[in-house]
Amino acid sequence: MNIIDSLEWRYACKKFDKTKKINEEQLQELKKAFNLTATSYGLQPLKMLVIKSEKLKSKLFPLAYYQPQVTTCSHLLVICTETNYGPEAVDAKFDLERKLRGTKEEIIEKFRGQLKDIYLKKEAVDLERESMYQAYIALGNLMTVCAELRIDSCPMEGFIPSKVDEVLGLSERNLKSALLLPVGYRAADDPTNGLAKIRKPLEEVVIDLD
Amino acid sequence: MNIIDSLEWRYACKKFDKTKKINEEQLQELKKAFNLTATSYGLQPLKMLVIKSEKLKSKLFPLAYYQPQVTTCSHLLVICTETNYGPEAVDAKFDLERKLRGTKEEIIEKFRGQLKDIYLKKEAVDLERESMYQAYIALGNLMTVCAELRIDSCPMEGFIPSKVDEVLGLSERNLKSALLLPVGYRAADDPTNGLAKIRKPLEEVVIDLD
Repeated sequence: MNIIDSLEWRYACKKFDKTKKINEEQLQELKKAFNLTATSYGLQPLKMLVIKSEKLKSKLFPLAYYQPQVTTCSHLLVICTETNYGPEAVDAKFDLERKLRGTKEEIIEKFRGQLKDIYLKKEAVDLERESMYQAYIALGNLMTVCAELRIDSCPMEGFIPSKVDEVLGLSERNLKSALLLPVGYRAADDPTNGLAKIRKPLEEVVIDLD
Repeated sequence: MNIIDSLEWRYACKKFDKTKKINEEQLQELKKAFNLTATSYGLQPLKMLVIKSEKLKSKLFPLAYYQPQVTTCSHLLVICTETNYGPEAVDAKFDLERKLRGTKEEIIEKFRGQLKDIYLKKEAVDLERESMYQAYIALGNLMTVCAELRIDSCPMEGFIPSKVDEVLGLSERNLKSALLLPVGYRAADDPTNGLAKIRKPLEEVVIDLD
């Protein structure tokens, strides 16, 4: 099976089989995949919560408008954006580069200054929007990785972020919930399972400029 | 090789080998992958330009701050958002559903009305931001698909959208450029090729709530 078959196989699973759980090995792969997501300037302004607790899922259920994928999934992934935008975020990135690549500070210095300049001049609202963009990259990456691993998922924007943040105590962690991605295995009786995929014709969405 | 190896292999390629071109079959796979991207409500508010023309790449080069990946790539993908937000976008989605799934209008009717309600009450600025989010899902998906196909890519936010739109005549197509993704094969002398990947430790970015 190639990657296109995987993408054809994928759909927004609305009801998972509660008896089937993602094993530790595959869960570890999803975590790694999340961490390998490309982000703007490599700043990684994201964290991911992995919720296994049935109690927590039940608490989140009404905050996601009672959508059954939240309580039937094996694990509920919550992609979060960080809220502490400061020079430390930039320093952390370059300190990591020094550590992992052994790059010398003389070389890094200039870029460190430039990025702080760009980063710290931005309004909080712009930084927040840009972090959201990165959350969507992670979502796009994770859905494709899930499909390739034959794990079902359902991308969800439909929930009340402020209330989810409250239930999960995210403000104490300097986080905000951005997106939900319940993962697991499709229930045989999910009414959307097996429906034809709806996509515009390829020639309508792709324009070749030769 | 599994998908995690592919993500480890991926990096933001800064210089492509100009002599190596993506073949038609793989190009077709990238186009399909783009079209298979999940989008909010399945509205697909995106299009993708595939630029092969060296002349066009050269014109875009200064508008992307002279970054060499723009001119050295095999093909320059431009992910665009649609600018014509109207009831037609919603109707197109449901008409397609009727056609591809044979769903009856009595069933669709209610959802069609609800989605128009949600969609048409939004401010243009919010619709634009939400379309941008979808562009980032496509980016995340495409980078992972490229990696799996061992095609190099470089996600780019750094360019002047209004000028790119002008050069590509996007306003006549009701489009705006959102993201660039040059694709091709890494040059042996790309200075960033082979550098260790910089990522925060997994335990710092993933939080388990059991």
